[in-house]
Amino acid sequence: MSPTKAPDSSRRSDRSRRAIHDAALALVVEVGYGKTTIEGIAARAGVGKQTIYRWWPSKAAVLLEAFTALAERAAETAGEVHGLPDTGDLAADLKRVLRATVDELNDPAIEAPTRALTAEGIVDPKLGAEFTEKLLDPQLQFYVTRLRAAQEAGQLRAGIDPRIALELLIAPLTHRWLLRTLPLTHAYADTVVDYALRGLSAED
Amino acid sequence: MSPTKAPDSSRRSDRSRRAIHDAALALVVEVGYGKTTIEGIAARAGVGKQTIYRWWPSKAAVLLEAFTALAERAAETAGEVHGLPDTGDLAADLKRVLRATVDELNDPAIEAPTRALTAEGIVDPKLGAEFTEKLLDPQLQFYVTRLRAAQEAGQLRAGIDPRIALELLIAPLTHRWLLRTLPLTHAYADTVVDYALRGLSAED
Repeated sequence: MSPTKAPDSSRRSDRSRRAIHDAALALVVEVGYGKTTIEGIAARAGVGKQTIYRWWPSKAAVLLEAFTALAERAAETAGEVHGLPDTGDLAADLKRVLRATVDELNDPAIEAPTRALTAEGIVDPKLGAEFTEKLLDPQLQFYVTRLRAAQEAGQLRAGIDPRIALELLIAPLTHRWLLRTLPLTHAYADTVVDYALRGLSAED
Repeated sequence: MSPTKAPDSSRRSDRSRRAIHDAALALVVEVGYGKTTIEGIAARAGVGKQTIYRWWPSKAAVLLEAFTALAERAAETAGEVHGLPDTGDLAADLKRVLRATVDELNDPAIEAPTRALTAEGIVDPKLGAEFTEKLLDPQLQFYVTRLRAAQEAGQLRAGIDPRIALELLIAPLTHRWLLRTLPLTHAYADTVVDYALRGLSAED
């Protein structure tokens, strides 16, 4: 083997992999999860279907990897690949990351495939559990880590469970976005952080 | 016309209407929104499809009414047809209604069709907006009314917008249920109310 052959082959395979990801995401938006097939993905990506079968065991596995790659690119853009920012100012850090989440959910390239997969997971328990475990839970863990650090710094009440606390921060955004109740804006993200941290009750 | 004829006819028509609702909800669970048809609903309900066309302009209209009836029966069971309870104890009232919501979402007769319609609304903006406007928004308005009463009683911070505050209370339940992250329990509903009302931050 020539010394350059492996890198060339690796570049070619990266290119094919990306084309397959893009084709899978595009198809799930256009025809829905149920009608997306390995054959359809292969045709759209311009590869043989054996290429897909060699790399992935199922359609769900292709889409899971495509979404993971999409989420990683979005996280890189937002500068949050390895967790939430920790400047010591919890409110500011949460607002920064929730504003970035608002931007992602409002980005058509992310919104359409995320809606298609979320909808399928809502009616298909097995797929829903797999996507939640592999895609959503690792992101939620970033919030647990950040909230626990705030707790250790005495900024979060001692009795609070960070795994539940994070739901008061992110669920309102997801709810508004999925159910289209009202516009999803930076101002809304800021208000959710303020309300969740300070609480709704009047001081005693 | 005999005096008894109208009531008989009304009873018969109530029975048909209920059969059509039940058929529509069952079909949307079994085959999904896309494959549910007026013909299929008519066949399953044992009525002619002209009966359906006479009463409703579209499949979406049948399902909207079927869901409204389902939600009203659930609200009657929970004793909350005309709004949230107001005993003067905001936390207790919210826990009561959110525990009832947990029970509804965990009831297979409500869960399955609600998942099917929610999933469709997530990918179909027109249907999603219609269901949110006609089914979800009126329920959210009950929370606005109850939170505003608490605000007037000095129990909620003066600057809080009740329309946003309610999202911190109900969105965590919806998020957990739709995305199957963790079990949806009464204890969870209670914790969400406690966290939302008191806030996550340590006292200054």
